[in-house]
Amino acid sequence: MVLVAPRNPLNIGAAARAMSNFGFPCLRVVNPYALAFREARSAVGAAELLANAEECTSLAAAVADCTLVIGTTAIGHRELQQPLWTLQDAAPKIHTALGLTEGRVALVFGSEKFGLSNESLSHCHGLLHIPTREENYSMNLGQAVAVCLYELTRSVSPATSPTTLPQPATAGEIERLLDVLLEVLRASNYGQAQTTENIEEQARRLVLRLNLCSRDVEILLGMLRRILWKLRQ
Amino acid sequence: MVLVAPRNPLNIGAAARAMSNFGFPCLRVVNPYALAFREARSAVGAAELLANAEECTSLAAAVADCTLVIGTTAIGHRELQQPLWTLQDAAPKIHTALGLTEGRVALVFGSEKFGLSNESLSHCHGLLHIPTREENYSMNLGQAVAVCLYELTRSVSPATSPTTLPQPATAGEIERLLDVLLEVLRASNYGQAQTTENIEEQARRLVLRLNLCSRDVEILLGMLRRILWKLRQ
Repeated sequence: MVLVAPRNPLNIGAAARAMSNFGFPCLRVVNPYALAFREARSAVGAAELLANAEECTSLAAAVADCTLVIGTTAIGHRELQQPLWTLQDAAPKIHTALGLTEGRVALVFGSEKFGLSNESLSHCHGLLHIPTREENYSMNLGQAVAVCLYELTRSVSPATSPTTLPQPATAGEIERLLDVLLEVLRASNYGQAQTTENIEEQARRLVLRLNLCSRDVEILLGMLRRILWKLRQ
Repeated sequence: MVLVAPRNPLNIGAAARAMSNFGFPCLRVVNPYALAFREARSAVGAAELLANAEECTSLAAAVADCTLVIGTTAIGHRELQQPLWTLQDAAPKIHTALGLTEGRVALVFGSEKFGLSNESLSHCHGLLHIPTREENYSMNLGQAVAVCLYELTRSVSPATSPTTLPQPATAGEIERLLDVLLEVLRASNYGQAQTTENIEEQARRLVLRLNLCSRDVEILLGMLRRILWKLRQ
């Protein structure tokens, strides 16, 4: 991650925080305006990363050991000379470069106010942009960094082990629940105008629509039994 | 987008900026610490959005017209009662809910320091988290908002709107049902060993798990009101 001429130390700290969140340890800063950026309080949990950030005097020096250099742009009215990808399309190219010959990839962000200069852009193999609304395309630096790193980890994150799904209720459990529910309804003189059969069918359809799990059947049974006991007092 | 008890106006502004970047106009803020948040300078290009933000005194009020309420969590050591999805897996569920019958979806963020309380979590149908490193899992609020909205705009799948699906219940309808259920349980001396708060949260989580449609809420309300009337005779 390379930040070129960032002005606001809070943004540098926020970038560091996102890098720490998503597991990107190496930050290089080219000619920062704020020399005291290493103390940025916004770098929550990323103090060490920020302390280890390398300061460079030129973008060329900052990307010297990288095999792929990707600039970021909000695409204003600038005429671009490089291939321009959406973040989503750039991600696989970055992954490929990282996989090959242990390549290093630089993701380069310009200053908050002006973005990357044409000189800086000329160091980039390609450019990426985050698709945003035309009416407000300019993102906050720290937020743009977070979004880019999210996308880069998104596509490689192992399929999350689905939280163990609750055990669905068996038809037998549903019937037990239904029995008690019908007793409660009878004890309350519910739906006297309807036939008993209608009520039973309506209640069963309702209970089936709920797609209950076993545990919820137990909870509902507990409630209904208590209500029934009270109704009969 | 619902922010619950946010402390730092700069974060509220940053959230507004990301919403403007990605095209999400509706911001609701529940009990913000900083009353002057509407002037947050970080809301670059999003002054109007911030000016139109609605202030609510409870999360229940903020999500009353929503058919799907998704909380966000960094998953610390908390034991979660709701289904937990990665952001990537939650996105299609959110798109589906938005496509159906013009549903509204609430994406809920807790305070910077504590996240969402258990009471707040009990209003959520499900939770999402952004996969981050275990060693530093807590993201900055504005950055987390940006990442979530990026994911939601990233893969806008054309919503297939099957017209046969029933109208899902709004959070407001669910709360009305919950109110009557709790009255019935109180009238039955249900769960005397537990605190009232526990029962309320347990009941809310249960009712949310049922994924009720509006019509079933009406049926259940009819049953519960009848039971309550009988209990009080």
